[in-house]
Amino acid sequence: MDFIYYSDLLGTMVFAISGAMAANRNNIDIFGATFTGFVTAIGGGSLRDIFLNIRPVWVEDGNYLIAIFIGVFISIIANKQLDKWARTLSLFDAIGIGFFTVVGVQKSLSYGSSDIAAIMLGMFSASMGGVIRDVLMNVTPLILRKEIYATACLSGAMLFVVLNNFHVDNGTNAFLSAALVFLIRILSVKFNLSLPTVNPTEKKDA
Amino acid sequence: MDFIYYSDLLGTMVFAISGAMAANRNNIDIFGATFTGFVTAIGGGSLRDIFLNIRPVWVEDGNYLIAIFIGVFISIIANKQLDKWARTLSLFDAIGIGFFTVVGVQKSLSYGSSDIAAIMLGMFSASMGGVIRDVLMNVTPLILRKEIYATACLSGAMLFVVLNNFHVDNGTNAFLSAALVFLIRILSVKFNLSLPTVNPTEKKDA
Amino acid sequence: MDFIYYSDLLGTMVFAISGAMAANRNNIDIFGATFTGFVTAIGGGSLRDIFLNIRPVWVEDGNYLIAIFIGVFISIIANKQLDKWARTLSLFDAIGIGFFTVVGVQKSLSYGSSDIAAIMLGMFSASMGGVIRDVLMNVTPLILRKEIYATACLSGAMLFVVLNNFHVDNGTNAFLSAALVFLIRILSVKFNLSLPTVNPTEKKDA
Repeated sequence: MDFIYYSDLLGTMVFAISGAMAANRNNIDIFGATFTGFVTAIGGGSLRDIFLNIRPVWVEDGNYLIAIFIGVFISIIANKQLDKWARTLSLFDAIGIGFFTVVGVQKSLSYGSSDIAAIMLGMFSASMGGVIRDVLMNVTPLILRKEIYATACLSGAMLFVVLNNFHVDNGTNAFLSAALVFLIRILSVKFNLSLPTVNPTEKKDA
Repeated sequence: MDFIYYSDLLGTMVFAISGAMAANRNNIDIFGATFTGFVTAIGGGSLRDIFLNIRPVWVEDGNYLIAIFIGVFISIIANKQLDKWARTLSLFDAIGIGFFTVVGVQKSLSYGSSDIAAIMLGMFSASMGGVIRDVLMNVTPLILRKEIYATACLSGAMLFVVLNNFHVDNGTNAFLSAALVFLIRILSVKFNLSLPTVNPTEKKDA
Repeated sequence: MDFIYYSDLLGTMVFAISGAMAANRNNIDIFGATFTGFVTAIGGGSLRDIFLNIRPVWVEDGNYLIAIFIGVFISIIANKQLDKWARTLSLFDAIGIGFFTVVGVQKSLSYGSSDIAAIMLGMFSASMGGVIRDVLMNVTPLILRKEIYATACLSGAMLFVVLNNFHVDNGTNAFLSAALVFLIRILSVKFNLSLPTVNPTEKKDA
């Protein structure tokens, strides 16, 4: 219980760092960086909660906002160092999206969503913060680029629901599903994998 | 009752096709196409439900997501054919927005919104999915272009509320209001009608 | 009580004018101008209410939508005059964001949010309408530009929460906090103040 709570806070902080760093790279002022860090960190989970018609957790529990401010603060004082650690951060990010996916699916199911909606909402929890960050930074949202990111979350969310229906123990299931997200994400970055498009005509650099 | 439910599913599927086709045209991968189809299909109705503070229907009823996946699948396997059927699809779209407008107004009124808010929310139900699609595709939202689209929905929504206050039978009212949306939309496409702007200075091609 | 209600309606109208004027400048048709005025006016407060999981006030109380339509109407008939009154309008805007910030913090606290979330939500109430307007107009959101706008709201929201914890009388507190927002905003415009960025490398015009 405590482990999940503190992981959630840590994941929130990592997402806030990623949002604030994107703002810093775009030469946005420190307020804008805080705002971008905030929406990146709470965007996915809040959207899930809004669809479930429950109140997002950060509205009542101030610790989430404190975690976000710490993340933004880190991104400001350690801005140059973090750029060097980009590789390590992307590792943390891969762990984070695995974790958020699983938490998102569990929460959706426990609030009475259908299996298929829980899969969507789990994927949303982990990836929509980044989408909002990209829209704010005026770049094509990650989710629409030919990179395997939300697909990794989707796979993990599907695995969780399937194993859950086979009554696999919750802890084991959470670990396996988060690990799948992590693996797909890390391997797709390492081997530069991507999904196919429907119009195969644009291959100009063949 | 069943007729409305299946029409709603069909309309959802048509909107998913329109979203996924826009993504395919932009050479977005199949995951992104699914995502775009999804937000186009559920965007308007979900926004209405969020404003009404109720849970969007697709969260509990998995059939809506299945309809969306079928729509996305159709857009992928029949991508080239659909481009030829653009005219037929815009006809379906005009029927669809009429239907969604009327359903949106009815639902809003039944959940205690004011008449004027029901008009806005009915219009939102039918047109906001397309707005979100356009924002994702990075084009000027349909609703802000000089085309009569949301205005058609608005007219139908107003008619429904007026007839409703004159106690016109619900079925007759729904049919007349949806028909008005359909007619305005189809005629504005056929005769290339548009609304005036406030700054009349840009008429350079006179 | 009545004073607050009518101020809220007036503030909503001023925000609608600002949104519709932005649309008029972009040569958007009158429907699009109405839509932009609407989202600018209700965006911030609706987002706050959605996070609090309550129904936005305009859904049940039609007067808010009427105030918006009056604002849009004013922006259309007095478009040229309003451009000359830009200075007066920015004064009204500074009063408006002070007022909306304070109302937003109070409402959030009264619905059980944490102090720190109430500060965020108060700031959101006053500034998110403008952010949505800017996203629709496809310009960098105000909140991300190097102008002191949301920061002013944030300062006032923090002051309100601090004074509230010291049990300062509600009316006095509201006045002082709104005045702080107003002062910071007006002074930052007058003296062209801005917040620092983290990357100080882009100073090419030195």
